Amino acid sequence: MDYSDLIKRLLNNEPRAAARLITIVENDITAAEEIINSIYKYTGNAYILGVTGAPGSGKSTFISTLTKILVEQGKKLGIICVDPTSPLTGGALLGDRIRMKEHFTLNNLFIRSMANRGQLGGLARATEDVIKILDVYGCDIVIVETVGVGQSEVDIFKSAQTVAVLLQPEVGDDIQAIKAGIMEITDIFVVNKMDLPGVDRKVAEISQMLELESSFKYSSDDFSKEFTKIRKWTPEIVKVNSKTGENFDIFLEIVDHHKNFLKETSIIESYEKNRIKNETLQILKHKLTKKVEKLISSNSEIEKYINLVMDKSLDPYSMANLIIKLLGIE
Amino acid sequence: MDYSDLIKRLLNNEPRAAARLITIVENDITAAEEIINSIYKYTGNAYILGVTGAPGSGKSTFISTLTKILVEQGKKLGIICVDPTSPLTGGALLGDRIRMKEHFTLNNLFIRSMANRGQLGGLARATEDVIKILDVYGCDIVIVETVGVGQSEVDIFKSAQTVAVLLQPEVGDDIQAIKAGIMEITDIFVVNKMDLPGVDRKVAEISQMLELESSFKYSSDDFSKEFTKIRKWTPEIVKVNSKTGENFDIFLEIVDHHKNFLKETSIIESYEKNRIKNETLQILKHKLTKKVEKLISSNSEIEKYINLVMDKSLDPYSMANLIIKLLGIE
Repeated sequence: MDYSDLIKRLLNNEPRAAARLITIVENDITAAEEIINSIYKYTGNAYILGVTGAPGSGKSTFISTLTKILVEQGKKLGIICVDPTSPLTGGALLGDRIRMKEHFTLNNLFIRSMANRGQLGGLARATEDVIKILDVYGCDIVIVETVGVGQSEVDIFKSAQTVAVLLQPEVGDDIQAIKAGIMEITDIFVVNKMDLPGVDRKVAEISQMLELESSFKYSSDDFSKEFTKIRKWTPEIVKVNSKTGENFDIFLEIVDHHKNFLKETSIIESYEKNRIKNETLQILKHKLTKKVEKLISSNSEIEKYINLVMDKSLDPYSMANLIIKLLGIE
Repeated sequence: MDYSDLIKRLLNNEPRAAARLITIVENDITAAEEIINSIYKYTGNAYILGVTGAPGSGKSTFISTLTKILVEQGKKLGIICVDPTSPLTGGALLGDRIRMKEHFTLNNLFIRSMANRGQLGGLARATEDVIKILDVYGCDIVIVETVGVGQSEVDIFKSAQTVAVLLQPEVGDDIQAIKAGIMEITDIFVVNKMDLPGVDRKVAEISQMLELESSFKYSSDDFSKEFTKIRKWTPEIVKVNSKTGENFDIFLEIVDHHKNFLKETSIIESYEKNRIKNETLQILKHKLTKKVEKLISSNSEIEKYINLVMDKSLDPYSMANLIIKLLGIE
């Protein structure tokens, strides 16, 4: 397929071209490859802000208020909502989106929901590609919103320069509800609903947790650690009221502060290298998994192996080794 | 390493041998391969029950009561608690475990917590191996408990013959908190805390959701669908009180009913084939990912590629293709 016309229109900031290209990269990794190949040289201007939080922490209202402020400041904004969607939860997510409708007509705002399709690591890959399209579309800021509970979210957030996590007062277990891996890449903790009692206790809880974290030594030689954002920044905590907009100025100051910190310390460069490694790894995993799955469903040898495993004359590890031989790796 | 002595002691139902072997397979995939290779022929006797639920649904109390009943019936029980653990959440999980302490001294009960280490798909793989060890250890039933919010849990539950999901009255969004993929493999919905008001509304909500689900047509040609449990069973709903044990007899009847259903319909066989495919795929993903990661961190070409991507003279997809060539696949 020839995407040059759509890409030309994307470079002319046409929203419909952006929407069309996003749909294409979401559904077709071969097309995504062609498109990213063509537009990659135009990327690198958007600032990526990741926002997550436990269910009920008020992510939608927070992002809605943040959007209003940024758009009023003349910023061009892209919002990607990454949701573990299924027909079962469609209703609720739709509700969230409707609350944001007031901004929908603005020219300098592009909102896109992405479902948790492509369970095989495809969501992080697709999100990376959508970020690039919105970057080329001319967005100054791309906000990536996730529900913050799965490993895939950690992968998604590896492309965000700044990661903010929303918590709320009076809920005991919301810190635990956030997956550990996300805590470790969080730059700003936002305690939402600051008008509720218990807000300062929540701030204290987070401080305590951060102290605990910094005193904990990783003994793991896990490869993935290498890919974690280099952590010299001490996460900041801010309390806000998303309904009134109170303290959003402080939140945005912290974001700016973090942005400058990344630049001044040259962390941004090693961060950028890690991002590229991560992204390439996602693509590689996807490509290799597809190869393996295709082989498992189509190769006639596999059925034989499965029967051997059923009879207990072969175990799954040995079967995996036989398949690796079939793949021609090793 | 020679594990034959430990394996002999495992076959003699020595709990310390089981514990030791579990620690080994958790931490070392090469050792796991050797051990599973030796014990695989003794597996296949335990019935695997997956239990999950939203935070606060009372999983610990439910499993505690269930354990008491099954152990009193003379069953030998293994419990694997799969937790997205990190130092941050350690406290709460410890609390959960303490509540289960009353059973700890029983000879026919083996409890094991597994942390969410090995973020690279390793948890599902390790859980499979631990199930096999408990199977060979002589457990009649192995209960696998997860928090039910991540994709990795879906992978873990693919090895459970029966999957039960806990919900509770008066909480609006607990159905949504459960990851969509888990809903789709659930055999029994347990509404816990049946003494609370709103229990019948929750039962009605679940029925409604199940109707919605059955009317939804999958248009996806996603490979993973093939691996989903063959669904001819209509999920059952039961309300229980984990504190008093009320209706646990009904829950266990449904489990038996489901067990017989799987046998009578020969679903168990295609289920078993899918389980083997899944498990092999997990192992393969792990092995291939390790290969790729090793290459990315050690190969001197990679650094060159990364710099080219930084300069925008190469894009991540093209970099992935170059790496696939380096791997010698294709």
